[in-house]
Formats: sequence, C-alpha cells, structure tokens
Amino acid sequence: MRMSEGVEWALHSCLNLTWVEPGEARTAARLAAFYDLPAAYLNKQLQALARAGIVTSTPGPRGGFRLARPPERITVLDVVTAIEGPGDAFRCSGLLRNGPEGRDDVDYARSCHVSQTMRRAELAWRRELAGQTLADLRDDVERSHPGTPARTREWFARQRP
Amino acid sequence: MRMSEGVEWALHSCLNLTWVEPGEARTAARLAAFYDLPAAYLNKQLQALARAGIVTSTPGPRGGFRLARPPERITVLDVVTAIEGPGDAFRCSGLLRNGPEGRDDVDYARSCHVSQTMRRAELAWRRELAGQTLADLRDDVERSHPGTPARTREWFARQRP
Repeated sequence: MRMSEGVEWALHSCLNLTWVEPGEARTAARLAAFYDLPAAYLNKQLQALARAGIVTSTPGPRGGFRLARPPERITVLDVVTAIEGPGDAFRCSGLLRNGPEGRDDVDYARSCHVSQTMRRAELAWRRELAGQTLADLRDDVERSHPGTPARTREWFARQRP
Repeated sequence: MRMSEGVEWALHSCLNLTWVEPGEARTAARLAAFYDLPAAYLNKQLQALARAGIVTSTPGPRGGFRLARPPERITVLDVVTAIEGPGDAFRCSGLLRNGPEGRDDVDYARSCHVSQTMRRAELAWRRELAGQTLADLRDDVERSHPGTPARTREWFARQRP
C-alpha cells in the first residue's frame, strides 16, 4: 500500500504558500521549479486542491495559486484527502456474506469485527492528521529553520521576469 | 490509496484458523471455498503468511494450514504487514533536497516536518492494529455470534470426502 507522491508535493506546496505575501500568488510552474518537480503533474495536484477548496487560482500575469483560507484552518488531513480521496485504505468487501452464515440483510462493513478493527486504525490515522494544521507545520519549520520564509520569498522574487 | 483485498481475505482466514481443532489443518482450497474466494489467489496470501511465520503448512492428505502460534501472539498488524509489506504508505522522497536550501548530508525522512507528521499518523495506525490480536478478534466474534466456532468446524467437517 503506497500513497501517491502527489501527497508529498501537495503538502510541501501548501506549506510554501503559507509564505506568500498578502495579495500575491504562485504559479504551478514556479511552485514546481522550487522543488524541481514536473510542472504538469504538480498542476494536477494543485487543481485537486482547488476543487477541495484548499487553494484558489487566479488568472492573469500576476495570477496563480494561494491558500483559500488561513493555514490555521487547513489540516494535513484536508490536503491528504484532496489528493487521495476520502475512501478508507481498507475497504470491506462484505466477504462474510459469501460464507455459510452469510446474510443479505447485514451491513458487514459495520458489523464485521475485522472491518471494525481496520476502521478504528484508519480513524486513529485520520485523527492524527486532522490534529495538525498547515499553520502547525509552518510554525515547526520556522522554529527549526527561522530563515526559510524570507529565503523562500526571495527565491520566488528572483524568478520574476 | 487502497489496501489489497488480500488483507481482508488473510484476516478472515486467520480468524477461521483459530477454530481449527488441535492437530488439524485447513487446505487453501477449503479456506477459499468457505468464502467463495479464488483458491489460487488466497493461496498466495497464505504463502505470504507462512513466510511471515504466522501460519505453517504441512503436506499430505490431512495437511494444510494452521496458525504457527497461539492467536494471543498474532496481532492484526502482523497479518496486515505480512500481506502489504512493512513500508509506510507515505514515503518521503526527500523533496527538500531539490529545493534551494537542499543539502545532501540531511536525512529528510527524519528531519522534514511533513514527513514527521505523516510518520506519526502511520504510527497511530500501526499502534491500533498492534493492540488487537487474533484472539481479541476471535473473542469479539464469539461474543456476538456464539454459534460460529461450532458451525465453522461442522462446515469444514462436511467438506471431507
């Protein structure tokens, strides 16, 4: 079981967007160039983030992406779900229904103990990611690397034509 | 992100094996027939469980699979890991290394805050699955469906030629 690389790219790009000055935006091409990522594929992730209401995109020469709401109100789970979808990694196929005691009127995803155990683990995973916001991540980075916000802004400023 | 169906099949088959009488075993074909699963594919999962030391397989006309140790000492995480492998779903590619502040001598999987956040969630998921044994699952089933062990044994007994 492996998550798409898009999750890592999206999280780092969102974190990058926490350092955008008010009124500014970043293009997919620039965000991709920052980490030497393929722009077309990063753009796909950014579009998914836009559909999920995490970033907004504005057209025009000074357009691009910015966060749609304060980083305090975007959780890591929001970003992961925007890229990977809302489904659980473990999906009960209702296998017990095919067994000798199987019944058509039972929702095994709810009643099966195997399914419940897997579900509890998924909830623990989600709880952890929902408890961490982009602002938390940004603050962690700024504590360990105080120069990062300014150097990131400088890097993007240098890219202007 | 989606786990293979083999995890569900393996967990249910292991649970099924908790009801095998001492000295008995179940063939892959019978375990598959119990839930109407494709025997060849279930056999692949059983072989993975055998490689992980969760089940043992004995040859011969009364041979087959049985649990390699008491169900109290097999966790749900053991079974999931045997099928899905030990790797995390989120794998840090060290994307920061390609950034303007990237360094070759830093292990980003350890130091990157994005990676650490994702790792904490995986640990919460693993902790939950490691806290549940096959004996716990068996006991849950026996509490909600007290007739299941006897009926399961009868079903396998009826399959004998």
